[in-house]
Amino acid sequence: MIVAPATSFGQGGIGIIRLSGPGCLDLVRPFVLGLGGGPPSWKSHRLYYGQFTDSSQRVIDEVMAVYMASPRSYTREDVVEIHCHGGLVVGRRILETLRHAGARTAQPGEFTLRAFLNGRIDLTQAEGVMEVIEARHRSAHQIAVQHLEGSLAHFCNELREQLLDSLALLETWIDFPEEDIDHPSFDSIVGTLTSVIENLRPVVASFRNGRVLREGVSVLILGKPNVGKSSLLNALVGSDRAIVTDLPGTTRDTLEEQLDLDGLRLRLTDTAGLRDSDDPVEQEGVRRACGKIAQADIVLLVIDGHRGMDDDDRSALGRCAGKNSIIVINKSDLPSVEIPSLPSHFPVITVSAATGAGIDRLREELRIRAGIADGEECPESLILTEERHHQALSQTLEKLGKTIESLNAGLSPEFIALDLREAVESLGVITGETAPEEVINRIFSRFCIGK
Amino acid sequence: MIVAPATSFGQGGIGIIRLSGPGCLDLVRPFVLGLGGGPPSWKSHRLYYGQFTDSSQRVIDEVMAVYMASPRSYTREDVVEIHCHGGLVVGRRILETLRHAGARTAQPGEFTLRAFLNGRIDLTQAEGVMEVIEARHRSAHQIAVQHLEGSLAHFCNELREQLLDSLALLETWIDFPEEDIDHPSFDSIVGTLTSVIENLRPVVASFRNGRVLREGVSVLILGKPNVGKSSLLNALVGSDRAIVTDLPGTTRDTLEEQLDLDGLRLRLTDTAGLRDSDDPVEQEGVRRACGKIAQADIVLLVIDGHRGMDDDDRSALGRCAGKNSIIVINKSDLPSVEIPSLPSHFPVITVSAATGAGIDRLREELRIRAGIADGEECPESLILTEERHHQALSQTLEKLGKTIESLNAGLSPEFIALDLREAVESLGVITGETAPEEVINRIFSRFCIGK
Repeated sequence: MIVAPATSFGQGGIGIIRLSGPGCLDLVRPFVLGLGGGPPSWKSHRLYYGQFTDSSQRVIDEVMAVYMASPRSYTREDVVEIHCHGGLVVGRRILETLRHAGARTAQPGEFTLRAFLNGRIDLTQAEGVMEVIEARHRSAHQIAVQHLEGSLAHFCNELREQLLDSLALLETWIDFPEEDIDHPSFDSIVGTLTSVIENLRPVVASFRNGRVLREGVSVLILGKPNVGKSSLLNALVGSDRAIVTDLPGTTRDTLEEQLDLDGLRLRLTDTAGLRDSDDPVEQEGVRRACGKIAQADIVLLVIDGHRGMDDDDRSALGRCAGKNSIIVINKSDLPSVEIPSLPSHFPVITVSAATGAGIDRLREELRIRAGIADGEECPESLILTEERHHQALSQTLEKLGKTIESLNAGLSPEFIALDLREAVESLGVITGETAPEEVINRIFSRFCIGK
Repeated sequence: MIVAPATSFGQGGIGIIRLSGPGCLDLVRPFVLGLGGGPPSWKSHRLYYGQFTDSSQRVIDEVMAVYMASPRSYTREDVVEIHCHGGLVVGRRILETLRHAGARTAQPGEFTLRAFLNGRIDLTQAEGVMEVIEARHRSAHQIAVQHLEGSLAHFCNELREQLLDSLALLETWIDFPEEDIDHPSFDSIVGTLTSVIENLRPVVASFRNGRVLREGVSVLILGKPNVGKSSLLNALVGSDRAIVTDLPGTTRDTLEEQLDLDGLRLRLTDTAGLRDSDDPVEQEGVRRACGKIAQADIVLLVIDGHRGMDDDDRSALGRCAGKNSIIVINKSDLPSVEIPSLPSHFPVITVSAATGAGIDRLREELRIRAGIADGEECPESLILTEERHHQALSQTLEKLGKTIESLNAGLSPEFIALDLREAVESLGVITGETAPEEVINRIFSRFCIGK
């Protein structure tokens, strides 16, 4: 029997403590007095008003209590919820009382794990729970809810059924090679696999968009000291988050800010100015800034249009080679000097972080460079946001390709069935049908306590 | 019709959105699909599993929904709760949908205000709700729950009834002075009033303890620079919260830490070292430290036992005059110099913040000086923790004293009744029977949103 707070305590008017497991109602019974002091009748799914007492019958709080009889509950087990007041002490005392009576504190994700193990939801739905809770904006949330509702599981199961049919045909042929039964029509198997591949491909391709929707786009602001990187960050975000001074080297570590562009989340990272320095703290800042280039989706290379370019700028520019970069010529409010020719494959935007001139054009360019790719026809409900799903479906695609190759090459049905079986298994890993225990453990360890 | 989140969103597995007001079920109805897609049957106090959709029928989340029909609800109005997933977006989207459909965002405390206005609870119980949520440790929480349960209201109402009886006797006499009805026995009135006073006095006196239980005891650590104030704070709390260096003047502003001594909460404040300084930042720190002396319950004056006393120490000592102070001679691990005679009314404790020597004795002395006073016989359930209650009951006591004086002085019954009526009104202010609107507004404005 497990117990955990299902809401965060310390804030908010109401706190919920949730128990799950056979016998949890009997465990709770002695501590809940109904209206008038008697026990509630504990009908399933009925909210009872009452008092929660400790083991010495001292009232801990006024509560609402509800019992949800198996299997009509979150975990499919018997579940009891105690709705008490928020605050630091109440929840702690109720938890203490229940633990003392024999309930064990739930592991993070253990309620949802039980829902999965008891067959109420599959792995994609469990992951959907976390996606819903973690969603940072509306578009990510809308996809997450559809995962939670089982859209991805439904899609995978349907394709899996088709592949299993083809596999069954192949296996009949393997088991009874000599018999005079209808051998599977190779054309019909190829037809099925091709249709599955055509269904899968846009879904696999949707992961790039899905990742952007879920995690946002990382934008690194790079440049030598005092070209106005922190001011540019502030101008983009519209606040004074970064500390701006006239002294070069003020930003010693990296700063991150969120920017919402039409529902698309940009994570802007300001960095220490890139230059040769003897200061060990500054050196470390430069090392970290350079270390972030590889992971950034977009680099904004900032150049001081008033003072012009020098070796430090050129060295910074060199570091952007091969990256999705935008060159930002800053300080357009001051007299400008000639900037030598810049690599033509980078867009160049002239701005003044101080006055805000050009910032809208820069935002527009960021939107274009960060934007969601069009063209792939993947329904919203199937957009992949989990690396795990992307891997499994990519592998399914690969194995299906191999299967068709083997079919066309006229290889033996045993060999063909081997590839096809792996394709089926990859699909099953997504919903949990065939997921190894360590995959399952990894998924649930990411959950929060009480979920 | 009002709506608000009743839990904090962003953390926790479950979030609750609560609506209250006539018609709130009809407002919610179109957005909740029950199992199988049809509407739930919405029996009162039944939890329904379903989906919450926006106005375009897009699913926002899987939810549990419950309707509580008036008057069996928190506010005594019709109430609907939607239990959705935690996270930033879900709750916001559900709130948006409901607001768009016509619900208004609740003011802080508005649900509890309605419970009060609709007569489900009185003012002390409403205040008890906040006390329960805000309670920082078990003893404060235990008292708060009893206030929530109405112990204080019950006590006040009972005394008020007795006073109203006496008042009625007096008023009959005023209205029919000539008639030959039994005049009230002065002795019996005096008896009643005396008994009420005897009941009230320990309760009024309990406020000192109640305030300590609720707010904790503030302890200010004072002394010139580099005597080891921050180290002493760390030694008492047992962590490295304050930054400790060998440079004088490291603590530029004040630092606060909590210390739990047997359920009693001490709020320890470290301050900037007191000395003459030209540094404007340091001067400001000294100004703030001195400003805190008046509000502190206890002052710990720290002296460096290794370097001995100088003018700065003597000046700091002078600032402690009249305060509940303990002199702490620090650095007992180093060779000590003679400390000249100290004011005999302050206890002196020698410690080493570096080794921990003497810290337990200091804790013990703090416990004694901060401790709850014994002797007054006030039941736990009636301990006053609200300044408002203390003021009202003090005034009742004062007016009752006056009434008895007037009775003994043989003043006219009109005059006596005036005082007695004021005593009755003061009692009524506590429960809200006679509380002016601005008192009620002030109470509920302290509440959190959604309560």
